[in-house]
Amino acid sequence: MVQKYVYGTPFETEAVTARIDRAKGGSVCGEVSLDDGFCFTCALEDDDVVYGLGEANRGINKRGFCYVSDCTDTPHHTEDLQSFYGAHNFIVVSGSRTFGLFVDYPSKLTFDIGFTRMDRLSITCERADLYLYVIDGETPYDIVKQFRRMIGRSYIPPKFAFGFGQSRWGYRTKEDFREVAEGYRKNHIPIDMIYMDIDYMQDYKDFTLNEENFPDFPAFVREIKEQQIRLIPIIDAGVKIEDGYEVYEEGVKNGYFCKREDGSDFVAAVWPGYTHFPDVLNPEARQWFGDKYKLLTDQGIEGFWNDMNEPAIFYTPEGVREAAEKVQAFFRNPAGEVSNMDVDVLVEGLANNEKDYASFYHQVNGQRVRHDKVHNLFGYNMTRAAGEAFERLDPEKRFLMFSRSSYVGMHRYGGIWMGDNMSWWSHILLNLRMLPSLNMCGFLYTGADLGGFNADASRDLVLRWMALGVFTPLMRNHSSMGTREQECFRFERVEDFRHIVEVRYRLLPYLYSEYMKAALEDDMYAKPLAFVYPQDAHAVQVEDQLILGDEIMIAPVYTQNAKGRYVYLPEEMMFVKFMPDGSICQEMLPAGHHYVDIALNEVPLFIRKGKCIPVAETAEYVEALDTTDMKMIGYPGSSYTLYEDDGIHKDYDNPANRRILKS
Amino acid sequence: MVQKYVYGTPFETEAVTARIDRAKGGSVCGEVSLDDGFCFTCALEDDDVVYGLGEANRGINKRGFCYVSDCTDTPHHTEDLQSFYGAHNFIVVSGSRTFGLFVDYPSKLTFDIGFTRMDRLSITCERADLYLYVIDGETPYDIVKQFRRMIGRSYIPPKFAFGFGQSRWGYRTKEDFREVAEGYRKNHIPIDMIYMDIDYMQDYKDFTLNEENFPDFPAFVREIKEQQIRLIPIIDAGVKIEDGYEVYEEGVKNGYFCKREDGSDFVAAVWPGYTHFPDVLNPEARQWFGDKYKLLTDQGIEGFWNDMNEPAIFYTPEGVREAAEKVQAFFRNPAGEVSNMDVDVLVEGLANNEKDYASFYHQVNGQRVRHDKVHNLFGYNMTRAAGEAFERLDPEKRFLMFSRSSYVGMHRYGGIWMGDNMSWWSHILLNLRMLPSLNMCGFLYTGADLGGFNADASRDLVLRWMALGVFTPLMRNHSSMGTREQECFRFERVEDFRHIVEVRYRLLPYLYSEYMKAALEDDMYAKPLAFVYPQDAHAVQVEDQLILGDEIMIAPVYTQNAKGRYVYLPEEMMFVKFMPDGSICQEMLPAGHHYVDIALNEVPLFIRKGKCIPVAETAEYVEALDTTDMKMIGYPGSSYTLYEDDGIHKDYDNPANRRILKS
Repeated sequence: MVQKYVYGTPFETEAVTARIDRAKGGSVCGEVSLDDGFCFTCALEDDDVVYGLGEANRGINKRGFCYVSDCTDTPHHTEDLQSFYGAHNFIVVSGSRTFGLFVDYPSKLTFDIGFTRMDRLSITCERADLYLYVIDGETPYDIVKQFRRMIGRSYIPPKFAFGFGQSRWGYRTKEDFREVAEGYRKNHIPIDMIYMDIDYMQDYKDFTLNEENFPDFPAFVREIKEQQIRLIPIIDAGVKIEDGYEVYEEGVKNGYFCKREDGSDFVAAVWPGYTHFPDVLNPEARQWFGDKYKLLTDQGIEGFWNDMNEPAIFYTPEGVREAAEKVQAFFRNPAGEVSNMDVDVLVEGLANNEKDYASFYHQVNGQRVRHDKVHNLFGYNMTRAAGEAFERLDPEKRFLMFSRSSYVGMHRYGGIWMGDNMSWWSHILLNLRMLPSLNMCGFLYTGADLGGFNADASRDLVLRWMALGVFTPLMRNHSSMGTREQECFRFERVEDFRHIVEVRYRLLPYLYSEYMKAALEDDMYAKPLAFVYPQDAHAVQVEDQLILGDEIMIAPVYTQNAKGRYVYLPEEMMFVKFMPDGSICQEMLPAGHHYVDIALNEVPLFIRKGKCIPVAETAEYVEALDTTDMKMIGYPGSSYTLYEDDGIHKDYDNPANRRILKS
Repeated sequence: MVQKYVYGTPFETEAVTARIDRAKGGSVCGEVSLDDGFCFTCALEDDDVVYGLGEANRGINKRGFCYVSDCTDTPHHTEDLQSFYGAHNFIVVSGSRTFGLFVDYPSKLTFDIGFTRMDRLSITCERADLYLYVIDGETPYDIVKQFRRMIGRSYIPPKFAFGFGQSRWGYRTKEDFREVAEGYRKNHIPIDMIYMDIDYMQDYKDFTLNEENFPDFPAFVREIKEQQIRLIPIIDAGVKIEDGYEVYEEGVKNGYFCKREDGSDFVAAVWPGYTHFPDVLNPEARQWFGDKYKLLTDQGIEGFWNDMNEPAIFYTPEGVREAAEKVQAFFRNPAGEVSNMDVDVLVEGLANNEKDYASFYHQVNGQRVRHDKVHNLFGYNMTRAAGEAFERLDPEKRFLMFSRSSYVGMHRYGGIWMGDNMSWWSHILLNLRMLPSLNMCGFLYTGADLGGFNADASRDLVLRWMALGVFTPLMRNHSSMGTREQECFRFERVEDFRHIVEVRYRLLPYLYSEYMKAALEDDMYAKPLAFVYPQDAHAVQVEDQLILGDEIMIAPVYTQNAKGRYVYLPEEMMFVKFMPDGSICQEMLPAGHHYVDIALNEVPLFIRKGKCIPVAETAEYVEALDTTDMKMIGYPGSSYTLYEDDGIHKDYDNPANRRILKS
């Protein structure tokens, strides 16, 4: 049961696709005050749990922190970080009362979930122009499913996108890409994709290729594809200002860029230097920008990642002018009134500055809308531009697409990766915890940069993180320029890496099947234990295990130098370890608490009581997987319904896609 | 058995007090190369564990990271941080071979402990001028004890320093301090100390008092002392350049400041603006600077904390000159060659810059020594200045003294706090893990800023952290200006905070007794489980429990929203919980793995099999504790030897200080 409340004049985000009538009176589960912007408050009991918020910091249970929906390019995901790249304003309160809230508001929104006071939830924003959806249901899981039905079917990538991918900001020349392809193929570590970060472009110009390094790009795409590897280029939000650059010139001519108050095109510096932002909230401009992806699909490209679309800003000419005087005052007279701390703040404040976000405009259905009021919709609509274009380009074909920034609604057009994380052990756990939260908000195709993007990775970190990555729909190892190289073949004892990636491919028929079922049935792929075992008093506290699909539980090791970990079983389960020699250990464990040994080169999972899953022979790329005669593991006498399609087209409802396998 | 190897011409740090003869030949447990600076390498087996490094990042087992001994003022203790404030170059390798290494080298030193390759330890530094001590022993614990005997008895504070202290950067006026004193006394939360951060000074000038706020400081010290609370002021390393300021003028006149190569006094900006650094490595200057503490002890002060003594540098005139041109070039022409990332790097690089550290000199026994070659000795010798002065001032009396920066050797003169941490849950665990590592290096009086210094703390974080702080010799809640106020009385349900601090006072007779025994016997106060249960195969993996003293094990909760935790018992133990109503739950638990419930307002500990500990009635300050008829908890029929003295003087060896208590 969903109640929709309207406050003021909301912006139409098109996050919700279901038709929901405005509530006629009724309570909203808490107090709403409109005295100073919008403020929703309600009491929290000691045992209440709060779920949701998609891409956000901290636990599966969101209690005890203050989260701010404000899409931000933020490179250090420390525990006190309030805003990530996405804005997913859906929460479920579960306990003494159980209800869901979706606040459809595309600007800055604060969720104080028992932070200022442990016993109070408050949701606040500056302008009381929003839709508030209140969802009643028996359980949080039921509420999530209702919400998912409200917001439309989740994005489904092609099957190759469930293979392993390697990425690094720093690959520049053909030789760089060939070295990576060879590193994997020679070592027989399975791989399906190599990602192209910003250096493949000419001067960071969207939809161009570096002329010196890629004179005949289609031939190079073919060359790599012949090794059964797809190249996946990045697309950035900002369009370089450069005379003669077609995208820039078309955008200016047609008025497709975001504008300043005076009507001139807004200027912001990003990787290419000064750029304009395509006005992706304007349907015409969105169509125009989306059609540009064809420049690359025509050359053989079948997938993309959209980046810098919060949109990130390094600085603006206006910002620089404003900061200059103070900064220069310090450098003229360091012992004067301006301190170097001020200078630090000023220089850092040049980037992603609120003032800049309040100084440009979108054109939406004849209305001019100031950017800060719809800030959280930019990445969503950039990715929607691509998604809508792919639909026009080839309505039968699936393209790979994921984005850094997002808002609920974007889940229909693409996945997300979890942003620029760090080579920190704590980020393995953050990766795990974000999975179910994102699933609640519709984002199923997701994963973190395995091994960590920034900072230097150690071999054991990468191994443990990859062993979690085995289970994330997007499985990509990605790292930043200037950090230690972390491709699987860079470390000693490469066979351990091969083994872990091979387990991904062996499990891929099952993982793909469960992903597809979740997408097609508006369900979650990764669930908190409490969603599956709602009567279990301890399950609700478990923050480092997940139920994946309907059959398995995962419990990765995420602490350095550990040889195992504690695990909680709400019921008897089959403890499965994929051993480095290719064998599979199975051991029945009773319900309760256990300490289990898990070596650095083993991949653990747990099969739920009475269930089984298929395991294929490994293959070096997705297409080579043979699913005709798979081994079944788990409980004897059980059966599993496998979903399998060609992975390319959209014939999802064909009954032939489902078949029953017996163990 | 200790072997001492001499390479080149080491600087005499005076870290080691024992007389140890140079080794006659023999192996050093690994390969030493002097081809390019100093490089020690040895193989690590899969199961080898490496202990030590004192104040350092990561686990009790130091494997898997690259640590750099390079005292640095560093505000964000993220997982990838290589250098903290101290330099404690002692490690123990335990496993296939067991040996200890102390590298007595006062400049930058790198410990790559299985990071670059998991199977290799390497220790490197630029100049091959050092002492290498190799310690053989049966167990890591035995090696630690040998090392501790080499470096002299650890600092012993007065007993009041085992009480609870409240601090915040931001207390400015008498009213601020009175408010804190009242907040504790009115709420009956025990307290013994309030710390004075930099704002008590006049313009951040060492040994001065703000004239407006503290016109009659001795009277104010008395006023607070009448409430049984001591004021503990901070002392910073840099001496403000200001005509008429006595300390500055004396230092200049006598040549007691560090000098540039041209002989002029070195200038660095810190809190007061431009300052000079007292040359604490020069014995004469050290004595002069130490004697200045008398300016405050004469006004009733009995304890200090030394800060900014890495020494931290915000910038130097030379650094500013060098950066100015590039920074200004960006602001003149943002689209030019200099990017805002360059500017960021330049502005941040003004602080704690290597070039600055290589541009000033100490005068040591007639020799001029460039600072960067002895960088890690500054905090040590600043604190030694105070310690030696106290000894002259009143040889019978103990003063409270702890420092931010340190080197092995400083442990004889003061404790340390663990630096400017964050209000992060992960820092509770970091706090716990640093305790035994610091103890290995001689630092017994230590603790972290409870609740976290930077970032905003939540009520539950402070409660859980304080429940660990109950057991740290230095128990202080400290926070930074600009963050949420986190004094115990700022939060709802203040009785939970009162309870936790009361448990500290109830346990104080035991904790003090164990501290004193550890200090007097060159032993550890906090030990890894493996040191006490060397035969237990699992104990060596436990990174979130400690043995404290000889009788108890601690296992605090360090994850948000958790209602308990897993704990490993190497043997049967008595699980004790101090309940919020003042009662004490005791439950015998068998050896093995357990999940135990621990509520937010409970303080847990475990008593080892066959042992007991005394518990006093609580008191609101240390002096009011009644130890005449304490309750004994733990195993019936056991006994405990209590160490108790007046806590003021140094009559440590008096047999009357020890008495046997029976349970």
